[in-house]
Amino acid sequence: MRLENLHEIQEKELFPGYHGKLFHGEQLSWAFWRVDQGSAVPEHHHLHEQMMHVISGRFEFTLDGITKICEAGDLIHIPSNQVHSGKALTDCVLMDVFSPARDDYK
Amino acid sequence: MRLENLHEIQEKELFPGYHGKLFHGEQLSWAFWRVDQGSAVPEHHHLHEQMMHVISGRFEFTLDGITKICEAGDLIHIPSNQVHSGKALTDCVLMDVFSPARDDYK
Repeated sequence: MRLENLHEIQEKELFPGYHGKLFHGEQLSWAFWRVDQGSAVPEHHHLHEQMMHVISGRFEFTLDGITKICEAGDLIHIPSNQVHSGKALTDCVLMDVFSPARDDYK
Repeated sequence: MRLENLHEIQEKELFPGYHGKLFHGEQLSWAFWRVDQGSAVPEHHHLHEQMMHVISGRFEFTLDGITKICEAGDLIHIPSNQVHSGKALTDCVLMDVFSPARDDYK
C-alpha cells in the first residue's frame, strides 16, 4: 500500500512563492500549496483538467478572462487547455488536483 | 467560471454514515466526506483510480489485504480496480479524488 503523510513530503518551490507538496498516481496528481502573499502565476494553460480548492487566504484567480477573488472553501473547475492565472492577495493554502498526472511536477 | 463553495454544496449520505459533498469535472471527481464513528464501507473495487486524504480522525483502511490505521495528513493511492474497504474508528473528515469522474455519485 502506498501511504505517505503530507508532513513528510518534501516541499518544492515550483514557481516563485509557490511551495508545493505533490502526490502522484497513474492518471491523477494532487498538489498541496503554501503560497506567499503577492506571488503570481502568469497566464498559462495545459492539457490537464484541474480543480482548485482554497483552504485559507484570498487568491485572485482569472479563468478565460473572468477574475474572481477566491476564499476558504471555494472550489474551481479549470477545463483542459483553458487559459488561467492567479495571484495570492494574502498568504494562501491551496490544493489542486489534476488528470492526467502532472509528469512535469515529478 | 464554475466556482462553488464547499459550505454551500449539499451533503448526501452515499453510504450509511458517509456524508459526502461532491465536485465533478469531466475526468475528475472530488469528494469531501464527514464520516460517523463506526461506519464501514465493505470490500469493493472500481475502475476509477482513487487517492484518499485524511483531514482528521482515525480511519482503518484495507487495500488488497493489507490494513493500516490512517490519521491526519495521510495520503493513500488506490490503483484502478484494486479491492479496498474502510472503517471510521472515530468521527473522520476525509477527501477522495477520482479519475475518471464518478458518474455514479452525480
